[in-house]
Amino acid sequence: MSDIQNDTLISRKAGSEEHDIYSEDGSIRSDFLARVGAAIADRDVLFLRQNVAKLHESELGDLLESILPDQRLALVKLLGKDFDLTALTEVDEAIRMEIVDQMPNEQIAAAIGDLDSDDAVYILEDLDHQDREEILAQLPFTERVRLRRALDYPESSAGRRMQTEFVAVPPFWTVGQTIDYLRDEENLPDSFSQIFVIDPTFRLLGIIDLDRILRCNRQIRIETIMRETNHPIPADMDQEEAAQIFEQYDLLSAAVVDDNGRLVGVLTIDDVVDVIQEEAEEDIRRLSGVGDEELSDSVKDTSRSRVPWLMVNLVTAFLSASVIGLFEATIEEIVALAILMPIVAGMGGNAGSQTMTVTVRALATRDLDIHNAWRVVRREAGVGLINGMLFGTVVGSVAGWWFADPHLGMVIASAMMINMFAAAMAGMMIPLLLDKAGTDPAVSSAVFVTAITDMTGFMSFLGLATLWLLK
Amino acid sequence: MSDIQNDTLISRKAGSEEHDIYSEDGSIRSDFLARVGAAIADRDVLFLRQNVAKLHESELGDLLESILPDQRLALVKLLGKDFDLTALTEVDEAIRMEIVDQMPNEQIAAAIGDLDSDDAVYILEDLDHQDREEILAQLPFTERVRLRRALDYPESSAGRRMQTEFVAVPPFWTVGQTIDYLRDEENLPDSFSQIFVIDPTFRLLGIIDLDRILRCNRQIRIETIMRETNHPIPADMDQEEAAQIFEQYDLLSAAVVDDNGRLVGVLTIDDVVDVIQEEAEEDIRRLSGVGDEELSDSVKDTSRSRVPWLMVNLVTAFLSASVIGLFEATIEEIVALAILMPIVAGMGGNAGSQTMTVTVRALATRDLDIHNAWRVVRREAGVGLINGMLFGTVVGSVAGWWFADPHLGMVIASAMMINMFAAAMAGMMIPLLLDKAGTDPAVSSAVFVTAITDMTGFMSFLGLATLWLLK
Repeated sequence: MSDIQNDTLISRKAGSEEHDIYSEDGSIRSDFLARVGAAIADRDVLFLRQNVAKLHESELGDLLESILPDQRLALVKLLGKDFDLTALTEVDEAIRMEIVDQMPNEQIAAAIGDLDSDDAVYILEDLDHQDREEILAQLPFTERVRLRRALDYPESSAGRRMQTEFVAVPPFWTVGQTIDYLRDEENLPDSFSQIFVIDPTFRLLGIIDLDRILRCNRQIRIETIMRETNHPIPADMDQEEAAQIFEQYDLLSAAVVDDNGRLVGVLTIDDVVDVIQEEAEEDIRRLSGVGDEELSDSVKDTSRSRVPWLMVNLVTAFLSASVIGLFEATIEEIVALAILMPIVAGMGGNAGSQTMTVTVRALATRDLDIHNAWRVVRREAGVGLINGMLFGTVVGSVAGWWFADPHLGMVIASAMMINMFAAAMAGMMIPLLLDKAGTDPAVSSAVFVTAITDMTGFMSFLGLATLWLLK
Repeated sequence: MSDIQNDTLISRKAGSEEHDIYSEDGSIRSDFLARVGAAIADRDVLFLRQNVAKLHESELGDLLESILPDQRLALVKLLGKDFDLTALTEVDEAIRMEIVDQMPNEQIAAAIGDLDSDDAVYILEDLDHQDREEILAQLPFTERVRLRRALDYPESSAGRRMQTEFVAVPPFWTVGQTIDYLRDEENLPDSFSQIFVIDPTFRLLGIIDLDRILRCNRQIRIETIMRETNHPIPADMDQEEAAQIFEQYDLLSAAVVDDNGRLVGVLTIDDVVDVIQEEAEEDIRRLSGVGDEELSDSVKDTSRSRVPWLMVNLVTAFLSASVIGLFEATIEEIVALAILMPIVAGMGGNAGSQTMTVTVRALATRDLDIHNAWRVVRREAGVGLINGMLFGTVVGSVAGWWFADPHLGMVIASAMMINMFAAAMAGMMIPLLLDKAGTDPAVSSAVFVTAITDMTGFMSFLGLATLWLLK
């Protein structure tokens, strides 16, 4: 334990600045929090401007998440126009809404003009219609048109995540002209890593990475060094699908085009990283029946979001119970069955969820498709058989010895083999079928798999016991 | 269902080239696979060179994963030096090893010289010592020294993932000198997005993004436009920690430095994206007790990798069974208890795993720390109480009606409330305690949480029944 902490300490130190606001465990340093809290209480604007306003947006976001709700609003008010609205893209939705709801629309409008368009859209999209319109109305015309166009694309589409600021040049320019333009033009994006080549109607012709420009002589024409854009992203493409293209082709940024192939924006890898992370996160949560909750949600919201999953599971639990009910007479005769039956059902559930997890993720990452599905099904069948025999033997021996009844041991051994094979098949086939049916397998696979392993477990164990042990 | 498929079809079409090798569901087109298979069988090198050799590395990787093992080796042999070794970084480890083991070391050595150093290291690090040394011995001196240095860093460190090719200039150069150098120098990396500023001993002084260079006039001195590197990555820092820094500060690339602050390489976001993905993947698998298995693993390997988790669960299953055993006499009296008891245990398990998943992920993403742990514990306690009361009432009513016994209903209602509260506490506290103890909470939380919800469920239900129903 202390080894691990030491490692972290050393590497953190080496990698960070002198005035790191984080302690070794990655949380914000307590003394910094205390100092900020005091400054907010004392309305010490000077301290806040010097030490809080200049934090990186993600650091400011972490700070906002670590202080009390009252302090958050006070801090935003005290910083006024020095408050970097981008920090709101780094906090939980609940905290973002809480702050934005309290900020006057004028202050938001004034601050939103300084943001990159993707960050502005991120904040605007959560606002209710009226607030959003009020804020948009106070923005300059071109800004307003741009943001409105991005907001017109469907939620979670590439068009929503894209940045509408980009650098584009005509194909007949030379490298020299391009460099001169970049040196003279004042209205460039804050940062960019590619230049797009377009025709007068904004149709995308090609892309040039900046290092290519820097390597070429001034007289070389742009059209001779631009490369074809193999992967323009349609603005209405789902962000997940766009993320998969980024991953597959190791892109740093990609052109976003409208239905007519006209350039409307650029999607950058930093936004895509968030999408990838959200995706995996979503699968983890769905597999265990947790909705889109966030750490800052209230008791009421959290409790409500978890009820549906529990409710569905309750229905299947009663179904399994009714399977047991069929064998009431047998259990009355041999109580040992009641003691052992959760083992058969539970081990099947564990084995099933192993297979299911692998299948769900393989489907999500597109590693599993029609070319290898049959091979993987056979593999899982093999694994189910082998582990079924292994655990059947172990459980059968222990149970036979515990209740001094070799026949009981044979019954539970057989039931374990049946259930672990059923678990492997269910864990594999259910996600595959749900996926074929166009449903997200992460959402509902677990309920079905557990229902099958529970019912198969009880049915095979109690059924075999009724046949073999009752004479 | 057909709607979804249509959507995908349209967007895929819009986003892809004419000769897309993928079908709508993301798998490789069957006719392309058949054509490649035939070409391999006919030793049609011309077709393979024209249609397979020029695929993107990730497409070639997908192709390798979709064809049969025999075809893989034949394809690599037929393509000879036209085979892009980078594709091996895109396939499962088992497939990579299978191919690399069969390739002559000379062919690997010849091909590895063309790779970026991070890709070369990725392939070399899995080879056994002797093969690796044989291949390294055939490389040019500087290449060999670079790769060896990267391989000397610990596994999964930033030093292993970095690229050792980078562009660096002295601080006293002007923008003009830098551009001239980039135009004349032939030994530049294939692509780069930043230029590093170093002193004669290679100590890192600053960084300049390429767009900054392009915006500035030729006579401006580098040292006046470079920015401080706030986040240099120590070469021995773990790749996960490096990925967190990338995420936090939205970096596209970062300098990797040795213990003395000397620049040794550059870590780029595309490698970091893989790390982020692997991380989330690891947590998903660990939560359901699946090891580092891959889809291409054999039945034997898969079965073996899943045994430990099942074994641990078996031990806790027997512990729970022995809790039931304590109440043998009670069950003999009231068989309904045997029918209902899996509901109490199972619902507790579901509620516990919801809380546990949220906690494990919040710890992994550093959203949960000492500043909000207490608040989150209180929230989970509240959720456990509310959902416990809700589901206790539902289950109690149904059970009371089913067995026409209101007393039984009250017993199961109380047991449900106790167990769902226990589930919330266990789901929260166990990952927190494991994390404090320096263990990865994703690995073992589920076993403990299930053990607690099973035992609490059986104990509270059967215990209360013994006290209240047996007279």
